[in-house]
Amino acid sequence: MSKDETYDLVVIGGGPAGYAAAIRAGQMQKKVACVELERAGGTCLNWGCIPSKALLRAAETYESIQSAGTFGIEVGDVKVDFGKVMDRSRKVADQMGRGIEFLFKKNKVDYFLGRGRINSPGAVEVTEGKDKGTRLQARNIMVATGCRARRLPGLEVDGRRVMTSREALAMKTMPKSIAIIGGGAIGVEFAYFLQTLGSEVTLIEMLPRIVPLEDEEISQALTRSFKKQGMKIRADSKVENVNVKKNSVTLDILRKDKKESIEVESVLLSIGVTPNTDGLLSDKVRLDTERDYIKVDEHYQTSIPGIYAAGDIIGPPWLAHVATWEAIQAVNGIFGHAAPKRLKDYPACTYCHPQLASVGITEAAAREAGIDYKIGKFPFSASGKAVAINAPQGFVKLVLGRKYGEVLGAHVIGADATELIAEYVLAMKAEITADEVHSTIHAHPTMSEALMEAAASAYDEAIHI
Amino acid sequence: MSKDETYDLVVIGGGPAGYAAAIRAGQMQKKVACVELERAGGTCLNWGCIPSKALLRAAETYESIQSAGTFGIEVGDVKVDFGKVMDRSRKVADQMGRGIEFLFKKNKVDYFLGRGRINSPGAVEVTEGKDKGTRLQARNIMVATGCRARRLPGLEVDGRRVMTSREALAMKTMPKSIAIIGGGAIGVEFAYFLQTLGSEVTLIEMLPRIVPLEDEEISQALTRSFKKQGMKIRADSKVENVNVKKNSVTLDILRKDKKESIEVESVLLSIGVTPNTDGLLSDKVRLDTERDYIKVDEHYQTSIPGIYAAGDIIGPPWLAHVATWEAIQAVNGIFGHAAPKRLKDYPACTYCHPQLASVGITEAAAREAGIDYKIGKFPFSASGKAVAINAPQGFVKLVLGRKYGEVLGAHVIGADATELIAEYVLAMKAEITADEVHSTIHAHPTMSEALMEAAASAYDEAIHI
Repeated sequence: MSKDETYDLVVIGGGPAGYAAAIRAGQMQKKVACVELERAGGTCLNWGCIPSKALLRAAETYESIQSAGTFGIEVGDVKVDFGKVMDRSRKVADQMGRGIEFLFKKNKVDYFLGRGRINSPGAVEVTEGKDKGTRLQARNIMVATGCRARRLPGLEVDGRRVMTSREALAMKTMPKSIAIIGGGAIGVEFAYFLQTLGSEVTLIEMLPRIVPLEDEEISQALTRSFKKQGMKIRADSKVENVNVKKNSVTLDILRKDKKESIEVESVLLSIGVTPNTDGLLSDKVRLDTERDYIKVDEHYQTSIPGIYAAGDIIGPPWLAHVATWEAIQAVNGIFGHAAPKRLKDYPACTYCHPQLASVGITEAAAREAGIDYKIGKFPFSASGKAVAINAPQGFVKLVLGRKYGEVLGAHVIGADATELIAEYVLAMKAEITADEVHSTIHAHPTMSEALMEAAASAYDEAIHI
Repeated sequence: MSKDETYDLVVIGGGPAGYAAAIRAGQMQKKVACVELERAGGTCLNWGCIPSKALLRAAETYESIQSAGTFGIEVGDVKVDFGKVMDRSRKVADQMGRGIEFLFKKNKVDYFLGRGRINSPGAVEVTEGKDKGTRLQARNIMVATGCRARRLPGLEVDGRRVMTSREALAMKTMPKSIAIIGGGAIGVEFAYFLQTLGSEVTLIEMLPRIVPLEDEEISQALTRSFKKQGMKIRADSKVENVNVKKNSVTLDILRKDKKESIEVESVLLSIGVTPNTDGLLSDKVRLDTERDYIKVDEHYQTSIPGIYAAGDIIGPPWLAHVATWEAIQAVNGIFGHAAPKRLKDYPACTYCHPQLASVGITEAAAREAGIDYKIGKFPFSASGKAVAINAPQGFVKLVLGRKYGEVLGAHVIGADATELIAEYVLAMKAEITADEVHSTIHAHPTMSEALMEAAASAYDEAIHI
């Protein structure tokens, strides 16, 4: 094999880490290949973030129609064609998938469909799929195979009675009732979507509160809002005895010593993820791992020189933007463009209604760490924009260092939360204090003023509360 | 009069500058009064930003109902009760007005209704209105009387055939057709609102393009979008011979040498503002002015020591958030809390659909100033979030210094633009370069990723285009 046929980089996996790595290498005029088992874009684009946002927008639209009367708009019969709702979501995913394929072409990324296996450092083989048998020589390899939804041992995922998020994104009909096991971001997004369109949702979380990674007050506010929407919430609860029947599923829910039995049409498992390592390595290759996640150093290099890894496969927080960010850092490092960095603070967003977004630590974490902190807080009910657009629910909460006012954490619940968080992510990255955010002019009337007023409130200088 | 009865600060005008000044002084335990002619909140809250946002949300809701089919939601007859639309907007203004009155009480601001006149430095008299005759002694006076809509000489504003934004916010019925004279922010917001709800809108702008202060590309994109919505746009056009009849108004529109005559039900004047100085000063008091705006120094002090001014009354850009910001700076300075600053960069937002938002200079301004600049740009059509929520229109455009990548200007057109701009306002204030914004992680999938990708694109490092 001539030198020309050796790739500068072969990426295994075409999701947010993999496709970004491949495109970034292509931008740097490197000879690069991407091996993807299913479709470019990976889980996020095909079976995660993107199609779910399309569904959530449908639910939001439905909700805004329901409340149109508030604005003086009278609406006749409203009918949801669930099949069409799901179809549009698939079309959006398909469109974005084609987009990535286009970007591969534009950036001269060779795109192989199939399962990539590392036979030895520098050698990748496609062992399954359309391009099975293809062998690639590589100066560098990046593993970006991501994760897949975790299942419950002994509970078969049949796509109808029992689903993970993947099957739920391909539902043909809406279950009249559903038990969602796991109250993290994915669980609450599906819960909001289905409850809004008319399904009877029971949301079950093992930990004491839903969205357990969020600040406690955010968690409480979401719980209140969901209950008001009619959802049944069972926190601090374990699921036992799942019994799948022909037309329904029965579950026993154990809360402390109280047992409740429910019967639902379907069950959705949203209990976390598990890394995709099946068939990734030949018997001769061993990478150091930790709980099946691949271990990397500060250059995103694995225990074998020349083999790198980024994204969900190197462990939590399992977020698409973190995966992309890591992959770009790694590739910039591999080709000497810039020294790769590891991530310190990152935003986490949940797109139910009200939306949640956060960056940095919660108040509880600050307390437990013994940090001398103060809180800044501003409710959207005091925001002119929020009231004008009929979205007065929620608040901004900041965790600040008491002495210097540095931003330790920012937490938002309410309309546009997922967009608003960007300002505090930048503030934390650039080490901008709350006082500086407060003295920065914010357009009126916007929801973003609440970001400023929350900072001001920590100094008793908020104008509107 | 005993010393106790002398106010630390008397503010004339209760709008975004005046109420913020009064509340801020109250926070600092100062004895403060606010004299307001109409209602706390001023034009912005009662007859501007806030009620208009309520109307615009109604239009957006109507538009989202019209496109609900895209999401698989079928809607029967939709009827707009225009009276209710307007009523809600008034109720929102009323609620926020009560909010300011509550904040006055909370911060121990004495609130007087009437026209405030400065009789001499340190002496304010209420000369009209409920509290007519009240005389106030003040160590410091702040003038925050703002501006009102400019009118055309010889054209009577009757509130039905001829309106300014003020009367338009109190319309009882929707005009079947309307000519909007002036294509700035207020003009285009009303144009979008009325066109969406079914009025036939002709938008007339004297300068070569609507939203003439925005970047040229933004202006062009909005023009295209408005035309697609069915609006008639007459830029580079003068209005001559306005003839008000019983049931209609006829106008001659002159574009270069081409004359067009149109007949409409109503005319809305949105041709800028004029300062409120009527009855502000007794004959013995003279403040230096420039084109009727009150001149201030770097401490917001007028030509008379102890008399300050902030907000629209000191001249453009006539934005509520600028007014509030200036007023707080001034009050912080008066009472020695912090050295007051003058504003350098500020966001400007227009809440039509698509939304516009900008901060800093346009590309044309950079070119004309001979600055060595480069452009970063990212279209929302390449954003997964934008596609998922059916909002792929618009783009982010950055004007950057070529050598250091400092942000000279940021321009956004599209969904959420008015919220997104906050990140670049902070970046400019804190002197964060485009490269730093680019390397800051942004949540996926959000519209805010476009802010990052636009920065990346200036360095040919954008992943998704």
